[in-house]
Amino acid sequence: MARIVKKFGGTSVADVEKIQSVARRIKKEVDAGHQVAVVVSAMAGVTNELVGYVDAISRMYDAREYDAVVASGEQVTAGLTALALQEMGVSARSWLGWQIQVKTDDVHGKARIHSIDGKEMIESMSKGEVAVVAGFQGISPGGRISTLGRGGSDTSAVALAAALDADRCDIHTDVDGVYTTDPRIVAKARKLDKITYEEMLEMASLGAKVLQTRSVELAMKHNVRLQVVSSFSDEPGTLVVNEDEIVEKELISGIAYSRDEAKITLTQVADKPGVAAGIFGPLADASINVDMIVQNVSDDGKRTDITFTVGKTDLERAVATVEARKKDLGYSKLVSDSEVVKVSVIGVGMRSHAGIAQTMFSALAEKGINIQVISTSEIKVSVLVREEYTELALRALHEAYGLDAE
Amino acid sequence: MARIVKKFGGTSVADVEKIQSVARRIKKEVDAGHQVAVVVSAMAGVTNELVGYVDAISRMYDAREYDAVVASGEQVTAGLTALALQEMGVSARSWLGWQIQVKTDDVHGKARIHSIDGKEMIESMSKGEVAVVAGFQGISPGGRISTLGRGGSDTSAVALAAALDADRCDIHTDVDGVYTTDPRIVAKARKLDKITYEEMLEMASLGAKVLQTRSVELAMKHNVRLQVVSSFSDEPGTLVVNEDEIVEKELISGIAYSRDEAKITLTQVADKPGVAAGIFGPLADASINVDMIVQNVSDDGKRTDITFTVGKTDLERAVATVEARKKDLGYSKLVSDSEVVKVSVIGVGMRSHAGIAQTMFSALAEKGINIQVISTSEIKVSVLVREEYTELALRALHEAYGLDAE
Repeated sequence: MARIVKKFGGTSVADVEKIQSVARRIKKEVDAGHQVAVVVSAMAGVTNELVGYVDAISRMYDAREYDAVVASGEQVTAGLTALALQEMGVSARSWLGWQIQVKTDDVHGKARIHSIDGKEMIESMSKGEVAVVAGFQGISPGGRISTLGRGGSDTSAVALAAALDADRCDIHTDVDGVYTTDPRIVAKARKLDKITYEEMLEMASLGAKVLQTRSVELAMKHNVRLQVVSSFSDEPGTLVVNEDEIVEKELISGIAYSRDEAKITLTQVADKPGVAAGIFGPLADASINVDMIVQNVSDDGKRTDITFTVGKTDLERAVATVEARKKDLGYSKLVSDSEVVKVSVIGVGMRSHAGIAQTMFSALAEKGINIQVISTSEIKVSVLVREEYTELALRALHEAYGLDAE
Repeated sequence: MARIVKKFGGTSVADVEKIQSVARRIKKEVDAGHQVAVVVSAMAGVTNELVGYVDAISRMYDAREYDAVVASGEQVTAGLTALALQEMGVSARSWLGWQIQVKTDDVHGKARIHSIDGKEMIESMSKGEVAVVAGFQGISPGGRISTLGRGGSDTSAVALAAALDADRCDIHTDVDGVYTTDPRIVAKARKLDKITYEEMLEMASLGAKVLQTRSVELAMKHNVRLQVVSSFSDEPGTLVVNEDEIVEKELISGIAYSRDEAKITLTQVADKPGVAAGIFGPLADASINVDMIVQNVSDDGKRTDITFTVGKTDLERAVATVEARKKDLGYSKLVSDSEVVKVSVIGVGMRSHAGIAQTMFSALAEKGINIQVISTSEIKVSVLVREEYTELALRALHEAYGLDAE
């Protein structure tokens, strides 16, 4: 007997028929003798509808009330899924955030889980009842409903798997696993059998929207074996695991891209200590995340150009923030560009292999793609190129690293 | 400063605009210096939608899961109403059943409230925050969400008013008060300024669907001053109060009718001790409510006819229950009729006045309406007549008791 947590997203529970089909999948695990906890999202479209109501009433809303409104969607699905299981003769019970004490911080709207008690729920499971848990929700220190942000049900599932010391946490979704790159762009993309937490983390933060980043961090921290798997077929998906579980490591596991970036260049900035702090301090104060930063070597040691990227949605505010300090910063020109894409090759194998970046640069050069900004980490090389090259770059790199399916 | 509880039903909070209009009404009370708690129902249609999901999944559903699903509607309205108030500059906070410990029994689906704690909510109100409470919901002894049955938000409001020792409990609805009879049938029906709890209780249990019966019982028990008032106009409504608050008592306050009854007659029943128990015992065991009962005097002291009424929805089961005992009961024929209506005149004044029933019988006889069954209580006379006479009977009685508006 294994203890398994299974999470089903909004499209997997979009209507009564889909909820019944989810219940049938859960029944299979129960019939196989496993103890099962299920985490469900709101029915597809419901959360958007609820957010629409809030937006229509208030532009600067109180996040505590926003949370009380939007958390109701998961409550409905949890109850309905429990009913669908019962109807199939499987004992089941629904559990809301306050009932299993999913304690979070008080950052309403994107709260982080601190702990799950679940004593009563574990008792219920040990009597053979499937626990159906409303994802996305917890309670804040003030005893109010908190929500975990978009994709938060992934995190609910992982936190629950950690609290239950589960053998596996299946994230059921509308894709059947993690691919070497976006299969809608690269027809030869391959589904990965396994990927490490670190790689998945880079993939997730780079816009491969298979898993919420926070959920991968949490799985890595608590060593939860994650599986990304289809809601609609019985095929095995992709396991997200510790590096030592992967015997034959690929050099490169995947190629990710993000169109959410925008580039800002300041020309002729004084090349002296404190100038970077003068730019990035105010941006940080405005809660604007800066991703890639490049500072060119100056010719004369007096003036230099600085380029950095921010999220596209933050671009306007970032430009305003910097321009408000133009006098202090003393740059000559601010140029912004949102028609860029960040392309990244990711792989834990590159730690022990030289030449990974060189392969990337050559492959892009061969196709005539100009690299605007480069940044690297231990397991990732990212470049910023013009957005129009997205597909071309992905295909070229996928082939260059030998990832194409035969 | 007064402390006021205001309840708004589903049609009053049916969409964002209506919720904003409710918020404006609440703001008026706050601006007048009052402390306000608001009880809200689900947006019109939402509860039916949720019940529809449950019905599609399960015919014999687990009422605990049903409750978890359907209670979500009120949660949404509570959050949205709090947001609408905040947007108008009025401090507000939403409260769910589990947050104010609305403790109920464990009869899920039609639970009864035992107590409300509300310590935290009262603290919040004393800081000037409007408390917006999700109606219809509580928590059962098992720590699960319970709901109070259709119209349960009325009861939530009255229980809250009692717990808060409120000066008044306004039930806002789509009618502007309690009428002498159904104004859709009798054009000359008048709105009552005041009515006693006892009269309102009779009206409510007879199908005048202005207030949930249980809410009136609770108001009477805790001496809560109720007001039935329009959601959409500022006109005063109808006060439901203690008898001693009404100085000029009307003889008859109102005329109610119910089409929910069906009649069963057993002919030639043995006229001997124990026969009534033989009929009504099994019906009670089957949870079938019997309302009016008439036993004719028998000619020869050996055989008699017994007529009684049950709810229309119970008719089939009632017939089956009685027929299963035909041998024991030894009646000759069972005749059932669902084309009947119960018409009742109600008034606390009749306690001290003779001739009330006689006026009723004469007025009906004058119109050629045959009375099938009669039953009386201290403040009510009810008759059963053929359903086709409903309108005629109501108009005749309304005139006969001098209730017509000038």
